[in-house]
Amino acid sequence: MNNEKKRPLILITNDDGVFAKGINTLVEIALLFGDVVVFAPDVVRSGMSNAITVHGPVVYSKLFSEGGLTVYSCTGTPTDCVKLSNYVLFKDRKPDLLLSGINHGSNASINVIYSGTMGAALEGCANRIPSIGFSLCNHSWDADFSISKTYIKSIIGLVLENPLPNEVCLNVNIPSGAVKGVKICRQALGYWKEEFEPRQDKNGATSYWLKGEFMNQEPDAEDTDDWALANGYVSIVPTSVDLSNNEYIHVIKDWELKIN
Amino acid sequence: MNNEKKRPLILITNDDGVFAKGINTLVEIALLFGDVVVFAPDVVRSGMSNAITVHGPVVYSKLFSEGGLTVYSCTGTPTDCVKLSNYVLFKDRKPDLLLSGINHGSNASINVIYSGTMGAALEGCANRIPSIGFSLCNHSWDADFSISKTYIKSIIGLVLENPLPNEVCLNVNIPSGAVKGVKICRQALGYWKEEFEPRQDKNGATSYWLKGEFMNQEPDAEDTDDWALANGYVSIVPTSVDLSNNEYIHVIKDWELKIN
Repeated sequence: MNNEKKRPLILITNDDGVFAKGINTLVEIALLFGDVVVFAPDVVRSGMSNAITVHGPVVYSKLFSEGGLTVYSCTGTPTDCVKLSNYVLFKDRKPDLLLSGINHGSNASINVIYSGTMGAALEGCANRIPSIGFSLCNHSWDADFSISKTYIKSIIGLVLENPLPNEVCLNVNIPSGAVKGVKICRQALGYWKEEFEPRQDKNGATSYWLKGEFMNQEPDAEDTDDWALANGYVSIVPTSVDLSNNEYIHVIKDWELKIN
Repeated sequence: MNNEKKRPLILITNDDGVFAKGINTLVEIALLFGDVVVFAPDVVRSGMSNAITVHGPVVYSKLFSEGGLTVYSCTGTPTDCVKLSNYVLFKDRKPDLLLSGINHGSNASINVIYSGTMGAALEGCANRIPSIGFSLCNHSWDADFSISKTYIKSIIGLVLENPLPNEVCLNVNIPSGAVKGVKICRQALGYWKEEFEPRQDKNGATSYWLKGEFMNQEPDAEDTDDWALANGYVSIVPTSVDLSNNEYIHVIKDWELKIN
Protein backbone atom coordinates (compact mmCIF):
# COMPACT_ATOMS: atom_id res chain seq x y z
CA MET A 1 0.00 0.00 0.00
CA ASN A 2 2.89 2.38 -0.77
CA ASN A 3 0.70 4.45 -3.05
CA GLU A 4 -1.67 5.22 -0.20
CA LYS A 5 -2.07 8.98 0.16
CA LYS A 6 -0.63 10.46 3.34
CA ARG A 7 -3.24 11.79 5.74
CA PRO A 8 -3.34 15.61 5.70
CA LEU A 9 -1.47 17.37 8.51
CA ILE A 10 -3.80 19.86 10.17
CA LEU A 11 -2.59 22.63 12.51
CA ILE A 12 -5.19 23.97 14.93
CA THR A 13 -5.01 27.10 17.06
CA ASN A 14 -7.40 29.64 18.59
CA ASP A 15 -7.52 32.67 20.87
CA ASP A 16 -9.65 31.27 23.69
CA GLY A 17 -6.83 29.02 24.86
CA VAL A 18 -6.04 25.34 24.54
CA PHE A 19 -8.66 24.25 27.10
CA ALA A 20 -11.65 25.98 25.48
CA LYS A 21 -14.64 23.94 24.37
CA GLY A 22 -14.54 25.44 20.87
CA ILE A 23 -11.04 24.23 20.02
CA ASN A 24 -11.81 20.76 21.29
CA THR A 25 -14.88 20.55 19.05
CA LEU A 26 -12.71 21.60 16.12
CA VAL A 27 -10.13 18.91 16.97
CA GLU A 28 -12.85 16.28 17.02
CA ILE A 29 -13.94 17.27 13.48
CA ALA A 30 -10.39 17.68 12.11
CA LEU A 31 -9.41 14.16 13.21
CA LEU A 32 -11.91 12.85 10.63
CA PHE A 33 -9.69 14.36 7.92
CA GLY A 34 -6.10 13.97 9.06
CA ASP A 35 -3.44 14.07 11.74
CA VAL A 36 -3.85 17.02 14.05
CA VAL A 37 -1.34 19.22 15.86
CA VAL A 38 -2.87 21.71 18.29
CA PHE A 39 -0.59 24.66 19.08
CA ALA A 40 -2.67 27.14 21.03
CA PRO A 41 -2.36 29.82 23.72
CA ASP A 42 -2.16 28.49 27.29
CA VAL A 43 -4.88 30.89 28.43
CA VAL A 44 -7.55 33.03 26.80
CA ARG A 45 -6.00 35.70 24.52
CA SER A 46 -9.00 37.36 22.87
CA GLY A 47 -8.82 40.59 20.90
CA MET A 48 -5.15 40.04 20.06
CA SER A 49 -5.58 40.63 16.31
CA ASN A 50 -2.27 39.86 14.54
CA ALA A 51 -0.20 40.92 17.58
CA ILE A 52 3.25 39.36 17.79
CA THR A 53 5.58 39.14 20.77
CA VAL A 54 8.62 41.23 19.85
CA HIS A 55 9.93 42.49 23.19
CA GLY A 56 10.17 39.18 25.00
CA PRO A 57 10.33 35.42 24.47
CA VAL A 58 7.58 32.86 24.02
CA VAL A 59 7.62 29.45 25.65
CA TYR A 60 5.76 26.30 24.65
CA SER A 61 5.29 22.82 26.04
CA LYS A 62 3.86 19.54 24.80
CA LEU A 63 0.77 18.54 26.76
CA PHE A 64 0.28 15.11 25.19
CA SER A 65 0.48 13.03 22.03
CA GLU A 66 -1.88 10.16 21.32
CA GLY A 67 -2.76 8.52 18.02
CA GLY A 68 -3.08 11.22 15.38
CA LEU A 69 -3.29 14.07 17.88
CA THR A 70 -0.49 16.11 19.48
CA VAL A 71 -1.26 19.09 21.71
CA TYR A 72 1.03 21.99 22.63
CA SER A 73 0.31 25.04 24.74
CA CYS A 74 2.16 28.32 24.23
CA THR A 75 2.57 31.57 26.15
CA GLY A 76 2.27 33.67 22.99
CA THR A 77 -0.50 35.26 20.95
CA PRO A 78 -2.44 33.28 18.31
CA THR A 79 -0.13 34.70 15.61
CA ASP A 80 2.93 33.70 17.69
CA CYS A 81 1.48 30.17 17.84
CA VAL A 82 1.29 29.94 14.04
CA LYS A 83 4.78 31.37 13.57
CA LEU A 84 6.44 29.28 16.29
CA SER A 85 4.82 25.99 15.27
CA ASN A 86 5.63 26.56 11.61
CA TYR A 87 9.22 27.58 11.99
CA VAL A 88 10.22 25.35 14.93
CA LEU A 89 8.02 22.22 14.75
CA PHE A 90 7.17 21.88 11.05
CA LYS A 91 10.56 22.25 9.43
CA ASP A 92 10.21 19.08 7.33
CA ARG A 93 6.52 19.14 6.54
CA LYS A 94 4.27 22.17 6.26
CA PRO A 95 0.69 21.75 7.49
CA ASP A 96 -1.82 21.09 4.71
CA LEU A 97 -4.43 23.12 6.51
CA LEU A 98 -4.66 25.59 9.38
CA LEU A 99 -7.89 25.78 11.37
CA SER A 100 -8.45 28.49 13.98
CA GLY A 101 -11.27 28.45 16.52
CA ILE A 102 -13.99 27.58 17.02
CA ASN A 103 -14.10 31.03 18.57
CA HIS A 104 -16.58 31.69 21.35
CA GLY A 105 -18.16 34.82 19.81
CA SER A 106 -18.71 36.40 16.37
CA ASN A 107 -15.82 37.52 14.19
CA ALA A 108 -18.03 38.91 11.44
CA SER A 109 -17.85 42.45 10.03
CA ILE A 110 -15.23 44.75 11.64
CA ASN A 111 -14.52 42.13 14.34
CA VAL A 112 -12.16 40.52 11.84
CA ILE A 113 -9.55 43.22 12.49
CA TYR A 114 -9.52 42.68 16.29
CA SER A 115 -9.86 38.91 16.30
CA GLY A 116 -7.00 36.70 17.43
CA THR A 117 -8.78 33.77 15.79
CA MET A 118 -8.70 35.52 12.43
CA GLY A 119 -5.21 36.88 13.18
CA ALA A 120 -4.01 33.27 13.25
CA ALA A 121 -5.86 32.46 10.00
CA LEU A 122 -4.37 35.53 8.28
CA GLU A 123 -0.92 34.51 9.53
CA GLY A 124 -1.38 31.03 8.09
CA CYS A 125 -2.54 32.58 4.83
CA ALA A 126 0.51 34.89 4.65
CA ASN A 127 2.63 31.74 5.05
CA ARG A 128 0.78 30.07 2.16
CA ILE A 129 -1.07 27.52 4.30
CA PRO A 130 -4.77 27.12 3.40
CA SER A 131 -6.41 28.66 6.48
CA ILE A 132 -9.91 28.91 7.93
CA GLY A 133 -11.13 30.73 11.02
CA PHE A 134 -14.35 29.42 12.59
CA SER A 135 -16.45 31.38 15.07
CA LEU A 136 -19.77 30.72 16.78
CA CYS A 137 -21.93 33.76 17.60
CA ASN A 138 -22.08 32.85 21.26
CA HIS A 139 -19.59 34.16 23.83
CA SER A 140 -20.55 31.66 26.51
CA TRP A 141 -17.71 29.45 27.75
CA ASP A 142 -20.14 26.54 27.64
CA ALA A 143 -21.61 27.38 24.23
CA ASP A 144 -23.34 24.60 22.26
CA PHE A 145 -21.21 23.78 19.21
CA SER A 146 -23.21 20.71 18.14
CA ILE A 147 -25.17 22.26 15.23
CA SER A 148 -22.02 23.82 13.78
CA LYS A 149 -20.27 20.46 13.31
CA THR A 150 -21.97 19.46 10.04
CA TYR A 151 -21.18 22.81 8.43
CA ILE A 152 -17.56 22.87 9.60
CA LYS A 153 -17.11 19.35 8.25
CA SER A 154 -18.48 20.33 4.82
CA ILE A 155 -16.32 23.46 4.64
CA ILE A 156 -13.11 21.63 5.61
CA GLY A 157 -13.89 19.00 2.95
CA LEU A 158 -14.42 21.67 0.28
CA VAL A 159 -11.18 23.50 1.14
CA LEU A 160 -9.16 20.27 1.04
CA GLU A 161 -10.63 19.55 -2.43
CA ASN A 162 -10.43 23.13 -3.77
CA PRO A 163 -7.14 24.82 -2.84
CA LEU A 164 -7.52 28.42 -1.70
CA PRO A 165 -5.51 31.05 -3.57
CA ASN A 166 -2.37 32.08 -1.66
CA GLU A 167 -3.57 35.45 -0.47
CA VAL A 168 -7.05 34.36 0.71
CA CYS A 169 -8.26 32.61 3.86
CA LEU A 170 -11.84 32.03 5.00
CA ASN A 171 -13.69 33.76 7.83
CA VAL A 172 -16.54 31.43 8.77
CA ASN A 173 -19.15 32.53 11.31
CA ILE A 174 -21.94 30.34 12.58
CA PRO A 175 -25.24 31.55 14.08
CA SER A 176 -25.86 30.68 17.69
CA GLY A 177 -29.19 28.92 17.18
CA ALA A 178 -30.80 27.00 14.33
CA VAL A 179 -29.05 27.18 10.94
CA LYS A 180 -30.91 27.64 7.63
CA GLY A 181 -27.91 27.16 5.36
CA VAL A 182 -24.70 28.77 4.15
CA LYS A 183 -24.01 32.09 2.36
CA ILE A 184 -20.80 33.22 0.66
CA CYS A 185 -20.54 36.87 1.71
CA ARG A 186 -18.55 40.04 1.91
CA GLN A 187 -17.63 41.68 5.22
CA ALA A 188 -20.36 44.06 6.43
CA LEU A 189 -19.29 47.66 7.02
CA GLY A 190 -19.54 48.31 10.74
CA TYR A 191 -17.80 49.64 13.82
CA TRP A 192 -17.96 49.49 17.58
CA LYS A 193 -19.54 52.42 19.34
CA GLU A 194 -17.54 52.08 22.50
CA GLU A 195 -18.37 52.93 26.02
CA PHE A 196 -15.74 52.80 28.70
CA GLU A 197 -16.83 51.98 32.19
CA PRO A 198 -14.79 54.01 34.67
CA ARG A 199 -13.96 52.14 37.88
CA GLN A 200 -12.10 53.47 40.90
CA ASP A 201 -9.29 51.48 42.48
CA LYS A 202 -8.83 51.42 46.27
CA ASN A 203 -6.83 54.69 46.08
CA GLY A 204 -9.43 56.50 44.00
CA ALA A 205 -7.56 56.29 40.69
CA THR A 206 -9.81 55.73 37.67
CA SER A 207 -9.32 52.86 35.24
CA TYR A 208 -11.40 52.25 32.12
CA TRP A 209 -13.00 48.98 30.99
CA LEU A 210 -13.92 48.53 27.37
CA LYS A 211 -17.58 47.96 26.62
CA GLY A 212 -19.43 48.77 23.49
CA GLU A 213 -22.15 48.15 21.01
CA PHE A 214 -21.64 46.91 17.46
CA MET A 215 -23.05 49.23 14.82
CA ASN A 216 -23.84 47.69 11.45
CA GLN A 217 -23.70 50.47 8.85
CA GLU A 218 -25.53 48.40 6.23
CA PRO A 219 -27.99 46.11 8.05
CA ASP A 220 -30.08 45.58 4.90
CA ALA A 221 -27.22 44.45 2.64
CA GLU A 222 -28.09 40.81 1.92
CA ASP A 223 -24.63 40.02 0.54
CA THR A 224 -22.91 40.68 3.89
CA ASP A 225 -21.82 38.35 6.70
CA ASP A 226 -23.74 40.20 9.34
CA TRP A 227 -26.98 39.95 7.36
CA ALA A 228 -26.44 36.21 6.83
CA LEU A 229 -25.90 35.64 10.56
CA ALA A 230 -28.86 37.79 11.59
CA ASN A 231 -31.01 35.69 9.24
CA GLY A 232 -29.86 32.27 10.40
CA TYR A 233 -27.15 31.48 7.82
CA VAL A 234 -23.53 30.45 8.24
CA SER A 235 -21.39 33.18 6.61
CA ILE A 236 -18.21 32.46 4.67
CA VAL A 237 -16.12 35.53 3.79
CA PRO A 238 -13.01 35.08 1.63
CA THR A 239 -10.60 37.29 3.58
CA SER A 240 -7.34 38.73 2.32
CA VAL A 241 -3.99 39.71 3.83
CA ASP A 242 -3.78 42.35 1.10
CA LEU A 243 -5.37 45.47 2.59
CA SER A 244 -4.78 47.69 -0.47
CA ASN A 245 -7.82 49.51 -1.79
CA ASN A 246 -7.15 49.33 -5.52
CA GLU A 247 -9.94 51.68 -6.59
CA TYR A 248 -8.67 54.50 -4.42
CA ILE A 249 -5.12 54.01 -5.76
CA HIS A 250 -6.45 55.26 -9.10
CA VAL A 251 -8.35 58.15 -7.50
CA ILE A 252 -5.25 59.63 -5.84
CA LYS A 253 -2.68 58.72 -8.50
CA ASP A 254 -2.33 62.42 -9.36
CA TRP A 255 -0.96 63.11 -5.87
CA GLU A 256 2.37 61.97 -7.29
CA LEU A 257 2.37 65.03 -9.54
CA LYS A 258 1.23 67.36 -6.78
CA ILE A 259 3.93 66.29 -4.32
CA ASN A 260 6.85 65.49 -6.61
CA MET B 1 -13.79 87.35 12.95
CA ASN B 2 -16.70 85.02 13.70
CA ASN B 3 -16.53 83.47 10.26
CA GLU B 4 -12.93 82.38 10.83
CA LYS B 5 -12.62 78.67 10.24
CA LYS B 6 -11.88 76.61 13.33
CA ARG B 7 -8.40 75.07 13.34
CA PRO B 8 -8.56 71.31 12.63
CA LEU B 9 -8.39 69.03 15.67
CA ILE B 10 -5.66 66.44 15.09
CA LEU B 11 -5.33 63.28 17.18
CA ILE B 12 -1.86 61.72 17.21
CA THR B 13 -0.86 58.27 18.46
CA ASN B 14 1.81 55.67 17.72
CA ASP B 15 3.15 52.32 18.89
CA ASP B 16 6.64 53.36 19.96
CA GLY B 17 5.29 55.24 22.97
CA VAL B 18 4.70 58.88 23.82
CA PHE B 19 8.39 59.69 24.32
CA ALA B 20 9.63 58.39 20.93
CA LYS B 21 11.40 60.75 18.55
CA GLY B 22 9.04 59.82 15.70
CA ILE B 23 5.86 60.97 17.42
CA ASN B 24 7.45 64.22 18.47
CA THR B 25 8.46 64.95 14.88
CA LEU B 26 4.87 64.28 13.82
CA VAL B 27 3.54 66.65 16.51
CA GLU B 28 5.86 69.38 15.27
CA ILE B 29 4.45 69.03 11.72
CA ALA B 30 0.81 68.66 12.82
CA LEU B 31 0.93 71.89 14.84
CA LEU B 32 1.35 73.73 11.52
CA PHE B 33 -2.15 72.54 10.59
CA GLY B 34 -4.22 72.54 13.75
CA ASP B 35 -4.64 71.88 17.44
CA VAL B 36 -3.06 68.63 18.50
CA VAL B 37 -4.02 66.02 21.08
CA VAL B 38 -1.47 63.27 21.60
CA PHE B 39 -2.93 60.11 23.14
CA ALA B 40 -0.22 57.47 22.94
CA PRO B 41 1.05 54.39 24.76
CA ASP B 42 3.17 55.10 27.83
CA VAL B 43 5.89 52.70 26.62
CA VAL B 44 6.84 51.00 23.37
CA ARG B 45 4.06 48.66 22.16
CA SER B 46 5.28 47.45 18.77
CA GLY B 47 3.74 44.58 16.84
CA MET B 48 0.37 45.05 18.56
CA SER B 49 -1.66 45.10 15.34
CA ASN B 50 -5.30 45.95 16.17
CA ALA B 51 -5.09 44.31 19.60
CA ILE B 52 -7.56 45.62 22.18
CA THR B 53 -7.51 45.22 25.94
CA VAL B 54 -10.57 43.13 26.79
CA HIS B 55 -9.57 41.27 29.97
CA GLY B 56 -8.46 44.24 32.04
CA PRO B 57 -8.72 48.02 32.33
CA VAL B 58 -6.69 50.77 30.69
CA VAL B 59 -5.53 53.88 32.51
CA TYR B 60 -4.50 57.24 31.10
CA SER B 61 -3.06 60.46 32.43
CA LYS B 62 -2.54 63.97 31.11
CA LEU B 63 1.16 64.82 30.86
CA PHE B 64 0.76 68.49 29.91
CA SER B 65 -1.25 71.03 27.94
CA GLU B 66 0.33 74.09 26.37
CA GLY B 67 -0.94 76.31 23.56
CA GLY B 68 -2.51 74.08 20.93
CA LEU B 69 -0.94 70.88 22.25
CA THR B 70 -2.26 68.46 24.89
CA VAL B 71 -0.45 65.21 25.64
CA TYR B 72 -1.83 62.07 27.31
CA SER B 73 -0.12 58.76 27.98
CA CYS B 74 -2.07 55.52 28.21
CA THR B 75 -1.39 51.97 29.43
CA GLY B 76 -3.24 50.43 26.46
CA THR B 77 -2.43 49.36 22.93
CA PRO B 78 -2.44 51.85 20.02
CA THR B 79 -6.01 50.75 19.16
CA ASP B 80 -7.06 51.22 22.81
CA CYS B 81 -5.62 54.76 22.60
CA VAL B 82 -7.82 55.59 19.61
CA LYS B 83 -10.93 54.07 21.19
CA LEU B 84 -10.41 55.61 24.63
CA SER B 85 -9.59 59.11 23.38
CA ASN B 86 -12.54 59.08 20.98
CA TYR B 87 -15.15 57.81 23.35
CA VAL B 88 -13.98 59.49 26.58
CA LEU B 89 -12.20 62.72 25.56
CA PHE B 90 -13.81 63.70 22.27
CA LYS B 91 -17.48 63.40 23.09
CA ASP B 92 -18.34 66.87 21.77
CA ARG B 93 -15.95 67.15 18.85
CA LYS B 94 -14.55 64.35 16.74
CA PRO B 95 -10.96 64.76 15.53
CA ASP B 96 -10.71 66.00 11.93
CA LEU B 97 -7.65 63.85 11.37
CA LEU B 98 -5.82 60.97 13.03
CA LEU B 99 -2.08 60.66 12.52
CA SER B 100 -0.17 57.60 13.72
CA GLY B 101 3.62 57.38 13.94
CA ILE B 102 6.10 58.31 12.75
CA ASN B 103 6.95 54.67 13.31
CA HIS B 104 10.57 53.71 13.79
CA GLY B 105 10.67 50.95 11.11
CA SER B 106 8.88 50.00 7.89
CA ASN B 107 5.20 49.09 7.83
CA ALA B 108 5.14 48.27 4.13
CA SER B 109 3.91 45.00 2.59
CA ILE B 110 2.73 42.34 5.09
CA ASN B 111 4.01 44.44 8.02
CA VAL B 112 0.72 46.31 7.84
CA ILE B 113 -1.08 43.39 9.52
CA TYR B 114 1.28 43.31 12.55
CA SER B 115 1.78 47.03 12.94
CA GLY B 116 0.39 48.87 15.96
CA THR B 117 0.91 52.13 14.06
CA MET B 118 -1.34 50.94 11.25
CA GLY B 119 -3.67 49.28 13.77
CA ALA B 120 -4.36 52.76 15.16
CA ALA B 121 -4.89 54.17 11.64
CA LEU B 122 -7.31 51.35 10.76
CA GLU B 123 -9.17 51.95 14.03
CA GLY B 124 -9.48 55.66 13.20
CA CYS B 125 -10.71 54.69 9.75
CA ALA B 126 -13.34 52.28 11.14
CA ASN B 127 -14.55 55.20 13.27
CA ARG B 128 -14.82 57.41 10.17
CA ILE B 129 -11.90 59.69 11.06
CA PRO B 130 -9.55 60.43 8.13
CA SER B 131 -6.44 58.53 9.23
CA ILE B 132 -2.82 58.25 8.11
CA GLY B 133 -0.05 56.01 9.42
CA PHE B 134 3.52 57.24 8.84
CA SER B 135 6.59 55.02 9.11
CA LEU B 136 10.29 55.57 8.46
CA CYS B 137 12.30 52.58 7.25
CA ASN B 138 14.76 52.89 10.11
CA HIS B 139 14.33 51.04 13.40
CA SER B 140 16.90 53.13 15.27
CA TRP B 141 15.57 54.94 18.33
CA ASP B 142 17.56 57.98 17.23
CA ALA B 143 16.55 57.77 13.54
CA ASP B 144 16.83 60.92 11.42
CA PHE B 145 13.32 62.11 10.53
CA SER B 146 14.40 65.41 8.96
CA ILE B 147 14.02 64.46 5.26
CA SER B 148 10.57 62.99 5.87
CA LYS B 149 9.10 66.27 7.14
CA THR B 150 8.47 67.89 3.72
CA TYR B 151 6.64 64.79 2.46
CA ILE B 152 4.55 64.35 5.58
CA LYS B 153 3.55 68.01 5.42
CA SER B 154 2.42 67.66 1.76
CA ILE B 155 0.45 64.49 2.47
CA ILE B 156 -1.35 65.96 5.50
CA GLY B 157 -2.25 69.03 3.40
CA LEU B 158 -3.65 66.86 0.60
CA VAL B 159 -5.74 64.73 2.99
CA LEU B 160 -7.21 67.81 4.69
CA GLU B 161 -8.18 69.17 1.22
CA ASN B 162 -9.37 65.83 -0.25
CA PRO B 163 -11.47 63.83 2.23
CA LEU B 164 -10.65 60.13 2.30
CA PRO B 165 -13.54 57.73 1.70
CA ASN B 166 -14.86 56.25 4.96
CA GLU B 167 -13.37 52.79 4.57
CA VAL B 168 -9.86 53.87 3.49
CA CYS B 169 -6.85 55.14 5.43
CA LEU B 170 -3.31 55.74 4.17
CA ASN B 171 -0.22 53.69 4.90
CA VAL B 172 2.74 55.99 4.23
CA ASN B 173 6.28 54.64 4.36
CA ILE B 174 9.38 56.75 3.94
CA PRO B 175 12.81 55.49 2.86
CA SER B 176 15.60 55.82 5.37
CA GLY B 177 17.99 57.80 3.19
CA ALA B 178 17.59 60.24 0.32
CA VAL B 179 14.10 60.51 -1.22
CA LYS B 180 13.47 60.72 -5.00
CA GLY B 181 9.75 61.38 -4.78
CA VAL B 182 6.38 59.82 -3.97
CA LYS B 183 4.54 56.79 -5.45
CA ILE B 184 0.91 55.78 -4.93
CA CYS B 185 1.16 51.99 -4.55
CA ARG B 186 -0.47 48.74 -3.67
CA GLN B 187 0.77 46.52 -0.82
CA ALA B 188 3.52 44.13 -1.99
CA LEU B 189 2.86 40.43 -1.45
CA GLY B 190 5.34 39.21 1.13
CA TYR B 191 5.81 37.33 4.37
CA TRP B 192 8.31 36.86 7.18
CA LYS B 193 10.46 33.79 7.07
CA GLU B 194 10.87 33.50 10.79
CA GLU B 195 13.67 32.14 12.84
CA PHE B 196 13.26 31.69 16.55
CA GLU B 197 16.35 32.02 18.67
CA PRO B 198 16.18 29.50 21.52
CA ARG B 199 17.63 30.78 24.79
CA GLN B 200 17.99 28.87 28.07
CA ASP B 201 16.88 30.43 31.33
CA LYS B 202 18.86 29.84 34.54
CA ASN B 203 17.00 26.56 35.11
CA GLY B 204 17.63 25.25 31.61
CA ALA B 205 14.13 25.88 30.25
CA THR B 206 14.05 27.05 26.63
CA SER B 207 12.35 30.23 25.53
CA TYR B 208 12.06 31.46 21.94
CA TRP B 209 12.80 34.94 20.61
CA LEU B 210 11.27 36.02 17.34
CA LYS B 211 13.70 36.91 14.57
CA GLY B 212 13.15 36.71 10.88
CA GLU B 213 13.78 37.88 7.41
CA PHE B 214 11.24 39.63 5.21
CA MET B 215 10.57 37.84 1.93
CA ASN B 216 9.16 39.96 -0.89
CA GLN B 217 7.28 37.63 -3.24
CA GLU B 218 7.18 40.17 -6.06
CA PRO B 219 10.36 42.28 -5.82
CA ASP B 220 10.08 43.46 -9.44
CA ALA B 221 6.51 44.75 -9.21
CA GLU B 222 6.94 48.50 -9.71
CA ASP B 223 3.43 49.32 -8.50
CA THR B 224 4.12 48.02 -4.95
CA ASP B 225 5.15 49.81 -1.76
CA ASP B 226 8.21 47.66 -1.22
CA TRP B 227 9.51 48.41 -4.73
CA ALA B 228 8.98 52.15 -4.20
CA LEU B 229 10.91 52.09 -0.90
CA ALA B 230 13.74 49.96 -2.31
CA ASN B 231 14.07 52.52 -5.11
CA GLY B 232 14.09 55.64 -2.95
CA TYR B 233 10.43 56.68 -3.12
CA VAL B 234 7.93 57.44 -0.38
CA SER B 235 5.09 54.89 -0.74
CA ILE B 236 1.43 55.73 -0.13
CA VAL B 237 -0.92 52.72 0.01
CA PRO B 238 -4.68 53.34 0.37
CA THR B 239 -5.47 50.72 3.00
CA SER B 240 -8.88 49.32 3.83
CA VAL B 241 -10.63 47.92 6.91
CA ASP B 242 -12.64 45.75 4.52
CA LEU B 243 -10.64 42.53 4.15
CA SER B 244 -13.14 40.79 1.84
CA ASN B 245 -11.69 39.39 -1.37
CA ASN B 246 -14.52 40.13 -3.77
CA GLU B 247 -13.13 38.15 -6.69
CA TYR B 248 -12.94 34.95 -4.71
CA ILE B 249 -16.51 35.44 -3.44
CA HIS B 250 -17.63 34.81 -7.04
CA VAL B 251 -15.30 31.82 -7.44
CA ILE B 252 -16.78 29.92 -4.48
CA LYS B 253 -20.38 31.10 -4.78
CA ASP B 254 -21.39 27.56 -5.84
CA TRP B 255 -20.32 26.24 -2.42
CA GLU B 256 -23.75 27.41 -1.24
CA LEU B 257 -25.30 24.75 -3.47
CA LYS B 258 -22.82 22.08 -2.40
CA ILE B 259 -23.36 22.57 1.33
CA ASN B 260 -27.04 23.56 1.50
